[in-house]
Amino acid sequence: MLERLKEEVLEANLALPKHQLVTFTWGNVSGIDRETGRVVIKPSGIPYDQLKKEHMVVVDLNGDVVEGNLNPSSDTPTHVALYRAFHDIGGIVHTHSPWATSWAQAGLAIPPFGTTHADYYHGEIPCTRALTDLEIQQDYEVETGNVIIETFRQRGLEPTAIPGVLVTSHAPFCWGTNADQAVHNAVVLEEVAKMALHTMQLNPGIPAISQAILDKHYLRKHGVNAYYGQKQ
Amino acid sequence: MLERLKEEVLEANLALPKHQLVTFTWGNVSGIDRETGRVVIKPSGIPYDQLKKEHMVVVDLNGDVVEGNLNPSSDTPTHVALYRAFHDIGGIVHTHSPWATSWAQAGLAIPPFGTTHADYYHGEIPCTRALTDLEIQQDYEVETGNVIIETFRQRGLEPTAIPGVLVTSHAPFCWGTNADQAVHNAVVLEEVAKMALHTMQLNPGIPAISQAILDKHYLRKHGVNAYYGQKQ
Amino acid sequence: MLERLKEEVLEANLALPKHQLVTFTWGNVSGIDRETGRVVIKPSGIPYDQLKKEHMVVVDLNGDVVEGNLNPSSDTPTHVALYRAFHDIGGIVHTHSPWATSWAQAGLAIPPFGTTHADYYHGEIPCTRALTDLEIQQDYEVETGNVIIETFRQRGLEPTAIPGVLVTSHAPFCWGTNADQAVHNAVVLEEVAKMALHTMQLNPGIPAISQAILDKHYLRKHGVNAYYGQKQ
Amino acid sequence: MLERLKEEVLEANLALPKHQLVTFTWGNVSGIDRETGRVVIKPSGIPYDQLKKEHMVVVDLNGDVVEGNLNPSSDTPTHVALYRAFHDIGGIVHTHSPWATSWAQAGLAIPPFGTTHADYYHGEIPCTRALTDLEIQQDYEVETGNVIIETFRQRGLEPTAIPGVLVTSHAPFCWGTNADQAVHNAVVLEEVAKMALHTMQLNPGIPAISQAILDKHYLRKHGVNAYYGQKQ
Repeated sequence: MLERLKEEVLEANLALPKHQLVTFTWGNVSGIDRETGRVVIKPSGIPYDQLKKEHMVVVDLNGDVVEGNLNPSSDTPTHVALYRAFHDIGGIVHTHSPWATSWAQAGLAIPPFGTTHADYYHGEIPCTRALTDLEIQQDYEVETGNVIIETFRQRGLEPTAIPGVLVTSHAPFCWGTNADQAVHNAVVLEEVAKMALHTMQLNPGIPAISQAILDKHYLRKHGVNAYYGQKQ
Repeated sequence: MLERLKEEVLEANLALPKHQLVTFTWGNVSGIDRETGRVVIKPSGIPYDQLKKEHMVVVDLNGDVVEGNLNPSSDTPTHVALYRAFHDIGGIVHTHSPWATSWAQAGLAIPPFGTTHADYYHGEIPCTRALTDLEIQQDYEVETGNVIIETFRQRGLEPTAIPGVLVTSHAPFCWGTNADQAVHNAVVLEEVAKMALHTMQLNPGIPAISQAILDKHYLRKHGVNAYYGQKQ
Repeated sequence: MLERLKEEVLEANLALPKHQLVTFTWGNVSGIDRETGRVVIKPSGIPYDQLKKEHMVVVDLNGDVVEGNLNPSSDTPTHVALYRAFHDIGGIVHTHSPWATSWAQAGLAIPPFGTTHADYYHGEIPCTRALTDLEIQQDYEVETGNVIIETFRQRGLEPTAIPGVLVTSHAPFCWGTNADQAVHNAVVLEEVAKMALHTMQLNPGIPAISQAILDKHYLRKHGVNAYYGQKQ
Repeated sequence: MLERLKEEVLEANLALPKHQLVTFTWGNVSGIDRETGRVVIKPSGIPYDQLKKEHMVVVDLNGDVVEGNLNPSSDTPTHVALYRAFHDIGGIVHTHSPWATSWAQAGLAIPPFGTTHADYYHGEIPCTRALTDLEIQQDYEVETGNVIIETFRQRGLEPTAIPGVLVTSHAPFCWGTNADQAVHNAVVLEEVAKMALHTMQLNPGIPAISQAILDKHYLRKHGVNAYYGQKQ
């Protein structure tokens, strides 16, 4: 089963440059096998055009390497923290995609300004508080995971309905039911981040869209009454 | 005849990613055969790189499927509403192209700031009012069509002279004499939307161009006295 | 000799989409043979991917067709007006390239904010006054040429030192010693227009660069004391 | 040994258009062999798609040509001034990449707004003072090097920790341990410059990131305790 997961995670990693979400090695995707609790993740600092299936690193939910000769992504502690806290997600992606990262650097959540946003994110895309100096110095990548979890818990957000977050001063993390869906949501975030900036430039006082249209578009694509796409 | 229309609609759909107007499946093109009242439209949620002629769905002017095994685009009720109301159009395209969508999200019409706009749109590109909660909840895609038609009727606009519209909080719809021309007008809208934003950033108080130059450029390309291009 | 000029003009036209200066057919390049006073220009409305050498149209300095079966560009009267007035230019290009067009739509000259600008344009890139309604209605394309010429004469500008202009509410025209150089200057204009907008966004009150650095960079590349590049 | 350096410098120059850092010939890369004090640099004004290893020019630390038939880059005096002053750098790149150049034209340093910046630049990316008219007129390219050196000395900056600078009214220079690393840092600068502008547009009052996160990210990738990537 992990061979198939390694292929999925490799493909999802290779999709990042294809969708122009990464410069150099600034991104990583992982996927989890929930039965065994094993996570497959990109190795640290390997260029995408050299990445092969045998490079994929297998870690457990503590982030300890179980299989593989390479160091896993330096962001591995963040990934496993999210897998431990968010039980319904199967894949995670981290990038420094420029539009979403600009919002993260600005320390601002992205309001839902249109149906493109509502089709995938059932509400604003939150931005975490800044980490304290102590959190940064002591266990940075773990605390990055913790501040994301705190953001969702304190605001009562459902990770499956809001499949991404902006980490202040840093960049986005997105997730999904698997690695491929996580990348899909990262592409959406980048498009939405770009359009939201331009929307605010055109009309600085524009409020978020109504709950009615937010619900309509989200539920048109998600949940038991979805009617977008083909019957599976 | 519908075989030819299916080919035209397929080609027009495939032109959307070529012109970078769509991300994933966020767009759809249809074409109508006015003699039979049959509309050919893209199926819902099928990726563009897998799209084939045999996937095209044929619906009647009520939006009911006449031929095809796949669900038609979820926006089909909007398309057929427009075909019923605007008798001189032969193709419709819907995208979430990012610059035009930013204007739609801002809830603002695009003023004619230059001759690029005037070459194709004989006046500002309107933006609809927001839908009411009831309209959103009851018959959303039909009401999206209705609010477009209301926009043109209340403002006395001629759909053939203004071949596109921004739906507030959503995205653009464009049309033309056929599916190919609809896509052409969608490309123009995206270029015009991008330049209009930058024009306003450079000179926030700039007024729209004069009626004289709007008429000159529009009529240079359209109508009985057009002299742009080659004699057909 | 015109066969060679036709090839040069064809190549220069094909360079426009390569440099992403045009959408659809929104651009045209011409070149002149000063000995015979013949101008070779792109035909009107022919897509770039279908353009062949035999499509090129030869006109005289009145804009009358001397050779060719197709209509010349609808902007031909502007081209020939410029050739008649600016004796040292050998090629002209017109595009609706988006950054330069945004400045033209804003009705603003582009100040020299850096050495990229100074390497090619020895001063601000001017923007014409708006045409009067009468000028637009009576002889539009000729008057477009006239207002460019007026702009250079009234401000004492040297066309070879400022090889381009923005026509208010419209778009840029550029020129050079031949068709290839005209396109080169159009590419530069687009880069400079983009950077100038972002420069003003970062520092709204920034003045133009000093005359000393404007002279240094322009004269490093142009004139008898130029030392950029290789000895020819 | 210089044959290998020539190959490295050629490859680094060819990486500029690949990373979309240059238009036409607006850029140059050099590398130094510290044992012999020889610098290999791109020839002036040769298009990238014609550039070959045998075109590379070898100069000494005074900028005098030691080997090669072509003129070296007109910016050679700037390169050698930097090599003489910054002993730990092995490669230098100059481009007019548009986002970084916009900041240079605005005369503003780029504050560290996020971890992308901190991963490579251990503090703000400085912008030099303007050159005086005398400096411009007398020995322009040497003085460009001098003002960069002055910027680093007066502010107590370490060139290896801040591997790039913006020259006011001009454009960036970047460097690294070799030519390839210099280009790498130029790519980073361009990404960072783009995101910093958008960050300020979203949140004009945003301060730079904390020293704690600046240190964390920089030292995660650089120095004895780095843990990003694979063990070499």
